[in-house]
Amino acid sequence: MRLLRIGEPGAEVPAVLDTTGTARDVSGIAGDFGPAFFAGGGLARLAAAVAAPSALAALPAVSGRTGAPIARPGKVVCIGLNYSDHAAETGAAIPERPVVFMKDPATVTGPYDEVFIPRGSAKTDWEVELGVVIGERGRYLESPEDALRVVAGYAVSHDVSERAFQLELSPQWDLGKSCERFNPLGPWLVTADEVPDPQRLGLRLDVNGRKRQDGFTGDMIFGVGYLIWYLSQYLVLEPGDLINTGTPAGVALGLPDHPYLRAGDRVRLEIDGLGQAEQRFVAAP
Amino acid sequence: MRLLRIGEPGAEVPAVLDTTGTARDVSGIAGDFGPAFFAGGGLARLAAAVAAPSALAALPAVSGRTGAPIARPGKVVCIGLNYSDHAAETGAAIPERPVVFMKDPATVTGPYDEVFIPRGSAKTDWEVELGVVIGERGRYLESPEDALRVVAGYAVSHDVSERAFQLELSPQWDLGKSCERFNPLGPWLVTADEVPDPQRLGLRLDVNGRKRQDGFTGDMIFGVGYLIWYLSQYLVLEPGDLINTGTPAGVALGLPDHPYLRAGDRVRLEIDGLGQAEQRFVAAP
Repeated sequence: MRLLRIGEPGAEVPAVLDTTGTARDVSGIAGDFGPAFFAGGGLARLAAAVAAPSALAALPAVSGRTGAPIARPGKVVCIGLNYSDHAAETGAAIPERPVVFMKDPATVTGPYDEVFIPRGSAKTDWEVELGVVIGERGRYLESPEDALRVVAGYAVSHDVSERAFQLELSPQWDLGKSCERFNPLGPWLVTADEVPDPQRLGLRLDVNGRKRQDGFTGDMIFGVGYLIWYLSQYLVLEPGDLINTGTPAGVALGLPDHPYLRAGDRVRLEIDGLGQAEQRFVAAP
Repeated sequence: MRLLRIGEPGAEVPAVLDTTGTARDVSGIAGDFGPAFFAGGGLARLAAAVAAPSALAALPAVSGRTGAPIARPGKVVCIGLNYSDHAAETGAAIPERPVVFMKDPATVTGPYDEVFIPRGSAKTDWEVELGVVIGERGRYLESPEDALRVVAGYAVSHDVSERAFQLELSPQWDLGKSCERFNPLGPWLVTADEVPDPQRLGLRLDVNGRKRQDGFTGDMIFGVGYLIWYLSQYLVLEPGDLINTGTPAGVALGLPDHPYLRAGDRVRLEIDGLGQAEQRFVAAP
């Protein structure tokens, strides 16, 4: 299934995309795509309810703003420097273990929403990432292979970053990762059954039509299963949590001329099978 | 008011402590002490409803486990190295700006709950901190003086830390701050009107009856108003968010013999006017 949420911020309704690309309102079947939905087996119930194409076609079409495909997560865990080409471009060593930090969960926003360049920012940067949404509790998981079973699905995630706030104010990165609207997500949550191998996806990003990132999830230093297993040895992954799995080379920080984002810039992101997103960057009001 | 939440995990009822120390169930007046309560002016409505001592006395007494005094926050923002004696004991320089990192909001637990020493941990450590709960949205606040108006109240917060996970696995601290049950909070949320000056509070912690931390919030490098103002220049503080404002000297990391916590240890925390908490540490099941 391709899950999405349609409506104004805070008033989105849960929907499923049908084969014609129409969003069908499933609010009569499912609650919002949040922690309670995932924890309560909502995904399996929803899949059963819309298994017949006719069942989905009978549901009301819904249109409007596309929100993030999940309700506000309990936490957003991010992995830094998880592609060797990106580690190299930022001058960092290849990490021996996953580098783990967090974003404010309130930064999660719709895939076409405007993103705010914070006041005082000169170094707002892009990062296309494979977003992983957790579907069941993950705590001291047995192995990286076992870990994939807790995945609800995958989505295009934009880990927007302010490099001065991230790197120049203190040694801790979270502040530069947590500015308002810094995590556009979607358009869809593609359920795990429709992503046979999360390590075989191309991910691309362009700015104002110019290709800037062109990576492959197979180049991750630590794959999705390993990351989930690793995290579960230290913290508890809860249904509805989001993991941003790192970005490949090509960010402004790593380019010779550091072409950081300016008001009016448009960033387009795409991951194979997970759809496209596009955000215009504007000065924070 | 002294707000608290009584009941089993996930089923706590909101309560107000009366002058005799009895918790009075206010679920008929207020919703849970979460983001919607604070954002919707719940604090003022509750205060008006229980202004007369007789009104409070007429409400049903409630007893049982004490949960955290707030529902799960949208985020937990922490300030590192915010007391110069603690910075010195850890070998760190006095920071020029607040060092900002995050904890998993799911770590927030009751003030008397058992805390889990994570599997594989040899360096679980204590940190008594003044916890600040946000009552209204804080975004680009004007000044440190102006910033205090967004505070809902204060609570005893235990920023439990696993030093190997925090400092030895990667340069980012969040992983060692986000283990299961690593943020006991409470017993109460004391509303801001009852804390005339958050920089004049003694805060103390002992382990198995031995005094380990004995600090004073006036020794913070960056005071509460400054921290809120500073954070609001970079991220949006939302009602119900928790800020842990840093710990004074005396943690195991800074003591010559590094007496990290072991299963069976009891940690007692106290802040002037905010009450006492006590947790037994047990091996993570």
